[in-house]
Amino acid sequence: MIIVMRPDAAEVEIEHVIERIRGAGLEPHVSRGVKQTIIGAKGDETALRSLPLEATAGVEKVVPIMKPWRLASRAFRPEGSVVRVGEVEIGAGAFAIAAGPCTVETRESLLETARAVSAAGARLLRGGAFKPRTSPYDFQGLGEEGLKLLAEAREATGLAVVTEVRDLRHVELVARYADCIQIGARNMQNFDLLKEVGAARKPVLLKRGMAATVKEWLMCAEYILAEGNPNVILCERGIRTFEDSTRFTFDVSAIPNAKHESHLPVVADPSHAAGHRHLVAAVACAAVAAGADGLLVEVHPRPEEAVCDGGQALLPADFERLARQVEAVRAALAPVGV
Amino acid sequence: MIIVMRPDAAEVEIEHVIERIRGAGLEPHVSRGVKQTIIGAKGDETALRSLPLEATAGVEKVVPIMKPWRLASRAFRPEGSVVRVGEVEIGAGAFAIAAGPCTVETRESLLETARAVSAAGARLLRGGAFKPRTSPYDFQGLGEEGLKLLAEAREATGLAVVTEVRDLRHVELVARYADCIQIGARNMQNFDLLKEVGAARKPVLLKRGMAATVKEWLMCAEYILAEGNPNVILCERGIRTFEDSTRFTFDVSAIPNAKHESHLPVVADPSHAAGHRHLVAAVACAAVAAGADGLLVEVHPRPEEAVCDGGQALLPADFERLARQVEAVRAALAPVGV
Amino acid sequence: MIIVMRPDAAEVEIEHVIERIRGAGLEPHVSRGVKQTIIGAKGDETALRSLPLEATAGVEKVVPIMKPWRLASRAFRPEGSVVRVGEVEIGAGAFAIAAGPCTVETRESLLETARAVSAAGARLLRGGAFKPRTSPYDFQGLGEEGLKLLAEAREATGLAVVTEVRDLRHVELVARYADCIQIGARNMQNFDLLKEVGAARKPVLLKRGMAATVKEWLMCAEYILAEGNPNVILCERGIRTFEDSTRFTFDVSAIPNAKHESHLPVVADPSHAAGHRHLVAAVACAAVAAGADGLLVEVHPRPEEAVCDGGQALLPADFERLARQVEAVRAALAPVGV
Amino acid sequence: MIIVMRPDAAEVEIEHVIERIRGAGLEPHVSRGVKQTIIGAKGDETALRSLPLEATAGVEKVVPIMKPWRLASRAFRPEGSVVRVGEVEIGAGAFAIAAGPCTVETRESLLETARAVSAAGARLLRGGAFKPRTSPYDFQGLGEEGLKLLAEAREATGLAVVTEVRDLRHVELVARYADCIQIGARNMQNFDLLKEVGAARKPVLLKRGMAATVKEWLMCAEYILAEGNPNVILCERGIRTFEDSTRFTFDVSAIPNAKHESHLPVVADPSHAAGHRHLVAAVACAAVAAGADGLLVEVHPRPEEAVCDGGQALLPADFERLARQVEAVRAALAPVGV
Repeated sequence: MIIVMRPDAAEVEIEHVIERIRGAGLEPHVSRGVKQTIIGAKGDETALRSLPLEATAGVEKVVPIMKPWRLASRAFRPEGSVVRVGEVEIGAGAFAIAAGPCTVETRESLLETARAVSAAGARLLRGGAFKPRTSPYDFQGLGEEGLKLLAEAREATGLAVVTEVRDLRHVELVARYADCIQIGARNMQNFDLLKEVGAARKPVLLKRGMAATVKEWLMCAEYILAEGNPNVILCERGIRTFEDSTRFTFDVSAIPNAKHESHLPVVADPSHAAGHRHLVAAVACAAVAAGADGLLVEVHPRPEEAVCDGGQALLPADFERLARQVEAVRAALAPVGV
Repeated sequence: MIIVMRPDAAEVEIEHVIERIRGAGLEPHVSRGVKQTIIGAKGDETALRSLPLEATAGVEKVVPIMKPWRLASRAFRPEGSVVRVGEVEIGAGAFAIAAGPCTVETRESLLETARAVSAAGARLLRGGAFKPRTSPYDFQGLGEEGLKLLAEAREATGLAVVTEVRDLRHVELVARYADCIQIGARNMQNFDLLKEVGAARKPVLLKRGMAATVKEWLMCAEYILAEGNPNVILCERGIRTFEDSTRFTFDVSAIPNAKHESHLPVVADPSHAAGHRHLVAAVACAAVAAGADGLLVEVHPRPEEAVCDGGQALLPADFERLARQVEAVRAALAPVGV
Repeated sequence: MIIVMRPDAAEVEIEHVIERIRGAGLEPHVSRGVKQTIIGAKGDETALRSLPLEATAGVEKVVPIMKPWRLASRAFRPEGSVVRVGEVEIGAGAFAIAAGPCTVETRESLLETARAVSAAGARLLRGGAFKPRTSPYDFQGLGEEGLKLLAEAREATGLAVVTEVRDLRHVELVARYADCIQIGARNMQNFDLLKEVGAARKPVLLKRGMAATVKEWLMCAEYILAEGNPNVILCERGIRTFEDSTRFTFDVSAIPNAKHESHLPVVADPSHAAGHRHLVAAVACAAVAAGADGLLVEVHPRPEEAVCDGGQALLPADFERLARQVEAVRAALAPVGV
Repeated sequence: MIIVMRPDAAEVEIEHVIERIRGAGLEPHVSRGVKQTIIGAKGDETALRSLPLEATAGVEKVVPIMKPWRLASRAFRPEGSVVRVGEVEIGAGAFAIAAGPCTVETRESLLETARAVSAAGARLLRGGAFKPRTSPYDFQGLGEEGLKLLAEAREATGLAVVTEVRDLRHVELVARYADCIQIGARNMQNFDLLKEVGAARKPVLLKRGMAATVKEWLMCAEYILAEGNPNVILCERGIRTFEDSTRFTFDVSAIPNAKHESHLPVVADPSHAAGHRHLVAAVACAAVAAGADGLLVEVHPRPEEAVCDGGQALLPADFERLARQVEAVRAALAPVGV
């Protein structure tokens, strides 16, 4: 950690900061410049992080040097992690697509979709039983009934199931039916929910919050890892910006960025980011070319009847084409590397 | 609701949309232009909102006309709502300041702060017992012990207590000690938590999410109102933008904007938005001049010892000056109106 | 255009809007709903756009229906445009990479770079002679001397030259040396400069402004097209968001989005967006997988000596690898489509 | 400047950085930590800023310490600057309001507006003769004819004239008629235009770019100051964010922030930021309460006939009320300070 003192900092203020650094068990390293004094603190920054040095008299700014994450850092497992969802591997070279409806609607529709995406190459089935909705008057999901239908679709197709948990009291319930528990973007910093899924035995797919930096996203993964669950998959799904022709702005750089900083697998959800069916395939291919370890894609046999987000759902035939494009991109990049 | 058809929409597609509108119990109103056909739907839009018309063949875009909120709308109570926190009134002309530390630390420090802010004119005491922290390794609050200290400070000073609930299992616990339950920015769209506080008997202070539009913020208030709790106070606390010299960008327009759309009181938290002590008073005065019904201000007797966010905490003497400035602005605007 | 009247609009206000629509030569189409009246205007919206209907008493909002661009629209040339830069074709299936230093520095360094990128497959040479710099004290480019060096490098390698014009008095000068005139992101809405390059006989590469929507970007292309220059290439280079681990947020969706709305070729600049060398190749591959018609990549033989932006410049060997990756992605997607 | 080396930086890389710092005439100060080495550079950072140290092998990041501005810094003139526009003073306690139409339309309308705003307390007349418009098909202003009308209105009312220059070839022309030259938000980083107005003898009102940080805004002021024109007024007018219920997000914190960093006066344009008439007064009062040295307000006698931006223009009577509110806020804060 580096503490930059104000140009007008008094000697006593400088001494006080030095003392506090020593008091926290670190070694101060003072550099008195022409205009201002800079103090480095050698040792474990964590001890300093809880001291509000920036609130101390005479301090202009505090520059942390160490990355705040540990278990999530690439250095923790340089070769990268593979997360196993049911029998499907994701990460460190292993790639898989999850596809399915935004929300589970009827048994027939879900089975039809599951069969279609399975035939097209998906290895996982996605679909919400508990939906976070902007309006309290909108359909909020089938609840446990939806989870049962997902499990039935798994029986029928062999697809592993990914589904969202919204309420921390439902973690155990969702874990009973799902192969992978999804944390939605709106709950990325619901820290108590993170702790609950950290204690669960199932892998967790952690969507990036719509206003979260890559750094904050990794810190949320750290919450789950710190509770003892090593099976975290990161999912980029678009961030909020001024651009209004897409639902969110898909931050494609976040994929190589997160993989550079962390050993965790990173997958992408092109559907929620794009928000329009005609943009989904291009964003999906881009994510894969940027190194994504997997995709979450919304597919619906009859989007115009979808209970939610029909405008971004692909038809099974569109999905089948997307799956082939993605496969082509992966095959092309395999020998040259991403 | 207005449905704009694509210029190349087929007659059968137009007919299909008309039929769906009729099927939902609304009356279609068709306007065939030179380039494209536009279809209005007369009646209760809510019925249409669950139909994914934008996913229907031939549709270019769907333009909702009605505002999505009901109980939160200004029309619901044109004169504005007064929310009573303990014995303190907020809204429709009544104004109050909540002040206190970011997080409850020690009994002595809390009582000292409470006495100081009370003497300076604050009517409410703010302070966290359950803190949402970016890092799992940071101090997360004293929990119930913190709530007890807050209650003790209320006894000692007469200040009403506002404190955050983070975990929906703690709503009942927090409500037992607090006069007003705060929902933090990161939990604004934690819909299950909103439902829980909607069922509580205490008023709720709902902070705006850092990536939430005013519209989404009001919809979250609607979640609470729809559960039967009419006592919601909105709190603007800054949004996330590219500007990095402040912690968040305080959206001052959101105050008159939310008050225009809704009858609910709107207060402001200048401390978290500014993130730097030297900017807090100016932002606070701005919020009041824009019509805020109250303020939440962080105050700490020794910011350099604060467990969190010391850099933005005011000293009691600074707070006392801020309270006088705010009072002057309010007095000045009373005869001419905000 | 659709005019939504306020629920409390008076009959005389409704009549007045109807009259104004008629006065502008359009046909009003009135739909009186239960809560509010909606008025459609059939005919050429352009006539209405200059009327401030939203400022008219009783009007709640105005919803334009027609896209504001004409010459830039996909409908104007559904098959897509090919722009010829020197002898290099870009667009409608033709793809090319421009590479080179951020700014032209020395003759030796430029020729070395030009030869290296040409050998690796680049068809165009990029490099600034007039640099827009945040600080007035930073190096602003070699000016005409830089243009001469670029022309010499073209002679030596056969690469076509793309370089930025910043000052509208230099358009003729830059056009004399360059094969393609670049408009930088900071000048995207410098409308007088757009008009000048619209009158030039050379193709124009129009970078997207860092706060510009896709819509505004296309309107700026329209400015150039409307002056009679049909050879416009759009360039996505990242937008400004809260994410601070990259220099800008590369908006990969903007590529398929702009190509959907417009017939103009769209290329990508992954270097400025990423801002860090280790992210450039992934963003470049993503852009190509999303359908980009070309790339602008910063390459420097010794980045640590670069006068500007060395941190994002690729070494020639890195660029050579990137060019092979990009070629692989293109070859893979050719049979399945982007 | 502080150079943080990567944890895996080789000794030779560390030595190389030390050498480069020495080569630039600064004194290196090395601190070898447990995990990584940090190198401080004592002396004038400017010399280092042109070295791409972040592109040097082994470097993780570079942290500048000194502020990049000089002439614009508060330290340059701690008491604050007063800028004189005609006979009106702005800054360091002096306050003034500029009001008028978005664009100059007719002689009658302009004179009517000028008289009304003058009577209500405005000291300056604002109005565009050269308008930057998103569409090439929209009205672009009356040009010199508009300047003449502004000068005539000045004769008639005594108001000083503020008007925008868009094309750098018009600086001399605009300066002939105007008392203050405005640089619009879209041209904030049109550096050649900044240099031209830096060479003019008239004061310059520099609007903040819609995606510009406060830091970048001050650097643009530095461009003008460095050319020898000391009379720069900064103008906050809203930034681009995801919030779409206002035209831009008025960044009220930028006012105290810019005044803290710089001695230049800071005024506010609430009209363009709010974009809706009913929000303008609240934003104006907020700006003044936050310490603004003046306001730019759009006023039109018949907004529904305004050629542009009628939706945000105040009626003269509304403006008169706003002027009284603003005066009340200023009077209230005078004794207690802003």
